[in-house]
Amino acid sequence: MTERERLEKWREQMGKELDRVMGFWTQHSMDKDYGGFFTCLAQDGAVYDDLKYIWLQGRQVWMYCRLYRKVPRFHQQEILSAAIAGGEFLLSYACPSAHSLKCAFVVTRNGQAVKIQRTIFSECFYVMAMDELWRTTHEERYKKAAHEMMVQIVHWVRVDPSGLGRVELPGAAQVNAMAVPMMLLNLVSQLCEGDEEMAKKYEEVGTWSVKMILQHLQRDGKAILENVSEQGQELPGCLGRHQNPGHAIEAGWFLLQHAIAHSDDSLVQTAVEKFVMLPFLLGWDQEYGGLFSFQDVDGHCPTQLEWNMKLWWPHTEALIAFLLAYQKTGDQRLLEHFEKVCEYVFSRFSDPEQGEWFGYLNREGNVALTIKGGPFKGCFHVPRCLYMCEEILSQLLDAKNKT
Amino acid sequence: MTERERLEKWREQMGKELDRVMGFWTQHSMDKDYGGFFTCLAQDGAVYDDLKYIWLQGRQVWMYCRLYRKVPRFHQQEILSAAIAGGEFLLSYACPSAHSLKCAFVVTRNGQAVKIQRTIFSECFYVMAMDELWRTTHEERYKKAAHEMMVQIVHWVRVDPSGLGRVELPGAAQVNAMAVPMMLLNLVSQLCEGDEEMAKKYEEVGTWSVKMILQHLQRDGKAILENVSEQGQELPGCLGRHQNPGHAIEAGWFLLQHAIAHSDDSLVQTAVEKFVMLPFLLGWDQEYGGLFSFQDVDGHCPTQLEWNMKLWWPHTEALIAFLLAYQKTGDQRLLEHFEKVCEYVFSRFSDPEQGEWFGYLNREGNVALTIKGGPFKGCFHVPRCLYMCEEILSQLLDAKNKT
Repeated sequence: MTERERLEKWREQMGKELDRVMGFWTQHSMDKDYGGFFTCLAQDGAVYDDLKYIWLQGRQVWMYCRLYRKVPRFHQQEILSAAIAGGEFLLSYACPSAHSLKCAFVVTRNGQAVKIQRTIFSECFYVMAMDELWRTTHEERYKKAAHEMMVQIVHWVRVDPSGLGRVELPGAAQVNAMAVPMMLLNLVSQLCEGDEEMAKKYEEVGTWSVKMILQHLQRDGKAILENVSEQGQELPGCLGRHQNPGHAIEAGWFLLQHAIAHSDDSLVQTAVEKFVMLPFLLGWDQEYGGLFSFQDVDGHCPTQLEWNMKLWWPHTEALIAFLLAYQKTGDQRLLEHFEKVCEYVFSRFSDPEQGEWFGYLNREGNVALTIKGGPFKGCFHVPRCLYMCEEILSQLLDAKNKT
Repeated sequence: MTERERLEKWREQMGKELDRVMGFWTQHSMDKDYGGFFTCLAQDGAVYDDLKYIWLQGRQVWMYCRLYRKVPRFHQQEILSAAIAGGEFLLSYACPSAHSLKCAFVVTRNGQAVKIQRTIFSECFYVMAMDELWRTTHEERYKKAAHEMMVQIVHWVRVDPSGLGRVELPGAAQVNAMAVPMMLLNLVSQLCEGDEEMAKKYEEVGTWSVKMILQHLQRDGKAILENVSEQGQELPGCLGRHQNPGHAIEAGWFLLQHAIAHSDDSLVQTAVEKFVMLPFLLGWDQEYGGLFSFQDVDGHCPTQLEWNMKLWWPHTEALIAFLLAYQKTGDQRLLEHFEKVCEYVFSRFSDPEQGEWFGYLNREGNVALTIKGGPFKGCFHVPRCLYMCEEILSQLLDAKNKT
C-alpha cells in the first residue's frame, strides 16, 4: 500500500469506529430523568450501577460538545441536549457545599455527594465541560463557571492546597505528581483556543506547567518518572521509581500541542523523543504486545496488582501522540508505531458488535473485565482518540492533495 | 492412604513450610537500626522499599510473639527481641498526634507519618500486637496500651466515628462493612484468651459483632454480601452486590471459634455451611482453580481490576476454616476441601527455594507479582495459617492416638 492508501484506510476505520462508539453512549448512557450520564455500563450497554462519577460526567459533556461543535455529522440536537443536561447536572450537584468550589468525586443518580477526593481532578473535568459547553452554546454562565473554577484550581495547586482537605504529615514527601501540571497544561490549551486574551492570561500557567512536566524527565534523559520532588529531584522508594507509560505518552502529546502552538522546536523534539518514543519503547510488552500499565524504573516488580494488565487509555494516548508527532515531523517511524498500536487496539479492545471498547485486558491481551464503562471509564478516551485521529488523518490527506 | 496418614503428611508439610516461611522473614525483614520490620521484600528477600505499613508492623509483632509463646521450636531470643523492637516502634510512632489514638497507615523507616486512613484497621493490628506482646513478656504497659486502644476502637465503631476524620455526606450509605465486626470479633477472641474477667468485659462486644456479621448472610441464606445497611438490609448497586469469598470464609472461622467457645451448635452450623462452604463453592474458579478475589452476587462483572486474580490470603483462610470445621464436625467433605486447597497452594503460591509465598497470581494461576511482601502483604496470613493448621493437625492426630 502507498502511504496515502494507508492513511485513507485508517481514516475510514477511525470514522466508522467513532460512529459505533458514540452510538453506544448515546443509546445507553443518557439519564433522561435526572440529567447527566450513566457510565457503569455492561458489555451490551445495560446499566449495572447508577452512581455518577464527576470526572466522567465532565468528560462526557466535553466530548459531546466537542463532537457537536467540530464534526458535522455529530451536529445533532440530541447530542447538544444531552450535553446541556449533563452540564446543568454538574452546575447543580458537582459542588456539595455552598461555601466551597470543592467538587465531589461521585454522587448518587440524583446528585447527592457520596465521596470527595482530596485532589483537583473532578474540578479539572468540570472546567473542561463548562468551557466546551460555552463554546458550543455561547451561554456566558458556562464560561464564568469554567474560569471561576480554573482560578480556584490554580490557587490550590500553586498557592494553598489546604482547601482540598489534605492533612500535612511530616513523613509525606512534597511531590510533583505529573498528573497535576499535565491537567493544567491541558486546561490552558482548552481555555485559550482561539482567544488571545485568554492566551495572555494563562501564558504563565502554561509555561509553569511545561516546566513542571519536564522535571519528570530523569536519569540523564533516559526515563520519565511519574513522581519527583517539587524541586525536580528523584524521590526514594517505589513512589520515586514509579512509571506510567500511558501517562508519559499523554503528557507527550500535550507538550507537543503546546510546542507547536508556541513554535518551540526544541520542545517538539523533547516531547516526541523523550515523552512519546522513550516510554513507548520501554513500556511495550515484547512478549504479548500492548503497553504495561505500570513499571519500576529499576526493574523491580511494581506493587500495583494491575501493573501488567493492558488498559485501553494508554493505547488511545499512544495513537494520538504518534499521529500528531508524525504530522509535525514526517518521521516514518512514528507512522509505523501508530500502525502497530492500531493493529493491537482494533484486534483486542474494539468490540464491533456492541460498540465502545473493552477497557481491561490481562497481560496476554484477553478481556479481563467485560464492562464497557465504570467508575474510571466513560465516554472520553476512546472517542477523543478516534475523533482526533480522524481529524489529523484528514489533515494529512488534505495536505497530500495540495502537494 | 489412611486418614491418619493423610493428616500426618499434611502436618509434616505445614511444619516444614512454616520453618521455611519464618526463615524468610527473620532473615530479611528485621530493621536493626530503627526497630520494626521491612515488609517490601522482593522474591529473594531484598528490600525494595523501606516504608513501614502499620497493619503489617502490628501483624508481624503478633505473629512473632504467638510463635514464641506457643510453638517450642520458635521460643528463641532472636524472635522475642525482634518482636519487642517492633512493639516499641509501634508505641513510639504508630500514633502521629499526641492528642489522639488515631494511628498512621504508613510511616517512614524512622517513624514519621506518611499517610493516615480514616478506618480502624491500623489500630486493630496495634491492639493484636500489644496484647500478644503482653502475654509473651508479661509487661503491663503493653496490656495497658492494648486495652486503651480497644476502648477507643469500640467507641469509634459504636458511639462516634468523628475521631476517624470521616466527612459525612448525604449520598453515602450508612454501611455495615463486614471487615469491621469481623475485626472486633477477632480482637475479642484475642483479648479474652484464658481470662474470665476480660471475657465478661467484652462479652457484649462479641455478641454484637456476631450479630453484625450474621447480617451479611442475605438472599434467603444463599449469599454472603460484603456490605449491608446498618439495619442489615441489602444496599443498591455494586456496593451492595459486592462479594469477597476469602473474607466471608475468614469470617466463617472467626464465627466458628466463637461458637465453639460458647458451645453454640446452631452458630457452628451457620459458620460452616453459610460462611465457609457457600462462599467456597461459589467463589472457586471451576476453570483454573483457586478462589476469585471478588464477585458480584448477580453475576455482573466486578469493577475491581483484580477481581479474577488469585490472592494468597483467601486461600490461607480457607485452609484454616476447613481444618477447624473438620475438627469440630468430623465431616469428610471438609477434609477433602482442605486437601483440594492444599494441592492448589503448595503447587502455586509456595516458593520452596526462597521461602514465603508469592501473593498474587493471575486467573490462570501463574505468578503475576514476584514480590513476597508489600504494602498489604507481610509476615501474617501465611505463617498464621501454617501454625494453626500444624496445631489443629497435631490435635487431630493426638485425638486419634487416644481412641
